[in-house]
Amino acid sequence: MTNALPIGLFDSGVGGLTVLREVARQLPKESTLYFGDTARVPYGSKSRDVICRFSLEIAQFLLHEKVKMIVVACNTASAFALPSLRARFDVPIVGVVEPGAQSALSASRTGRIGVIGTEGTIESQAYSEAIHRLKSNLQVFGQACRLIVPLVEEGSLDKPVALEIVKEYLTPLMAKTVNTLVLGCTHYPLLKNLLARVAGPQVRLIDSAEETARAVGRQLKDLQLEAPVGAPLLRRFFVSDAPEKFEKIGQRFLGQAIPGVQRVDISTWI
Amino acid sequence: MTNALPIGLFDSGVGGLTVLREVARQLPKESTLYFGDTARVPYGSKSRDVICRFSLEIAQFLLHEKVKMIVVACNTASAFALPSLRARFDVPIVGVVEPGAQSALSASRTGRIGVIGTEGTIESQAYSEAIHRLKSNLQVFGQACRLIVPLVEEGSLDKPVALEIVKEYLTPLMAKTVNTLVLGCTHYPLLKNLLARVAGPQVRLIDSAEETARAVGRQLKDLQLEAPVGAPLLRRFFVSDAPEKFEKIGQRFLGQAIPGVQRVDISTWI
Repeated sequence: MTNALPIGLFDSGVGGLTVLREVARQLPKESTLYFGDTARVPYGSKSRDVICRFSLEIAQFLLHEKVKMIVVACNTASAFALPSLRARFDVPIVGVVEPGAQSALSASRTGRIGVIGTEGTIESQAYSEAIHRLKSNLQVFGQACRLIVPLVEEGSLDKPVALEIVKEYLTPLMAKTVNTLVLGCTHYPLLKNLLARVAGPQVRLIDSAEETARAVGRQLKDLQLEAPVGAPLLRRFFVSDAPEKFEKIGQRFLGQAIPGVQRVDISTWI
Repeated sequence: MTNALPIGLFDSGVGGLTVLREVARQLPKESTLYFGDTARVPYGSKSRDVICRFSLEIAQFLLHEKVKMIVVACNTASAFALPSLRARFDVPIVGVVEPGAQSALSASRTGRIGVIGTEGTIESQAYSEAIHRLKSNLQVFGQACRLIVPLVEEGSLDKPVALEIVKEYLTPLMAKTVNTLVLGCTHYPLLKNLLARVAGPQVRLIDSAEETARAVGRQLKDLQLEAPVGAPLLRRFFVSDAPEKFEKIGQRFLGQAIPGVQRVDISTWI
């Protein structure tokens, strides 16, 4: 069995494009449909309730557009909304937290793991719970990094202020002598070089995107949902606000130009 | 004639509380009803269209709750949505940009004016247009400051990173030798000391809140809408997400504790 429908991915904005990029690289035959909730971005500082509601609206929209799987390509939405989405919809739903936790565990079997993310992701304890489900005796330390998302979106990555901000957040984690650092937000891969420089060579950086794309590939195979040979490849993009801006900022995340982004009034998809 | 209804104020989140604080100080007999759109905050990076839609929804809600005037206590919403709001509703509507422009002009009759604000406010050119309507031969220089709002909300005002961020944004304006600096975002008064220190003693800082409260007072008087003597004083607060967090962060903006914040599902108020 095969299935030619696209994989649906969503995020609060451009960040999830780092996951799309990896899905497209690992699964080049799979069509994709991406939604960025740019009218309500960011998710990281908002409550579980509101993130669940936003995620349900977006999932409704994706299913209306016909997708065979939903990838929650946002750490905050994965941390808060995965159980509600799985309870409500029948398609397979993959988040970024479980694959990231798996990857952190492989990198750090006996070690101390740091997790950086938005306030919501860190306060939810989603990573430490997912890591402890896999192995209970690891030490996990979280650090919320409120300024990194706007810093990355502003594009000021090579300014002195970027180094100052990264130092501010990593110093407390380094004091805990972590040897693995999970980039628990889809924006952070764009700061990978700077994070690696400040964290030092003894710290292994974990980017969930790679492991998430692998989880997507495995599930498609297990559920016999892979795209048929020779199916046309489609990449569609939707946002809830400012398509031009999404095209402009998003290409740094996707690593290539983003064609024909359409705007959708998402709050009507309840 | 008098009118005992409250004044309605709204902002994307906690920032407008700096305006409420000044309204309460200058017009202590006036009741108020404040709405913070914490489910969709921030407004500064979003489009004119979506900010107009959000503002119309909130105005509908305020009018349903019965207010005698609407104060758009948010620079981005004032820059984008004032004409649509005035075209749609009959109550008097006061924004923060025109009062801020008036105040900048009084401070700097012959000078060079810098304006700091969100991307939306700066790109809209709302301040330079408002200043040029009052006096055409002034020079106005805008600087978008994406990181200041999250910095203020994070509360990291006395850390080295705050100084680094403020320097980053003010250096280009100082190079233009501005002698007046408009704080074109309701969050910025909380950084006033640091901004003043970096800008230096030759630069006069303009905070729109004071002038906005004066404009509110004038309009209430002119339109015979002042509260009657002895009317009960009410302060009500509504948000679209996370009331507890609003109470916690908001008290730094209001300068006192915020009692009994209620949550409203605002996207249904179209």
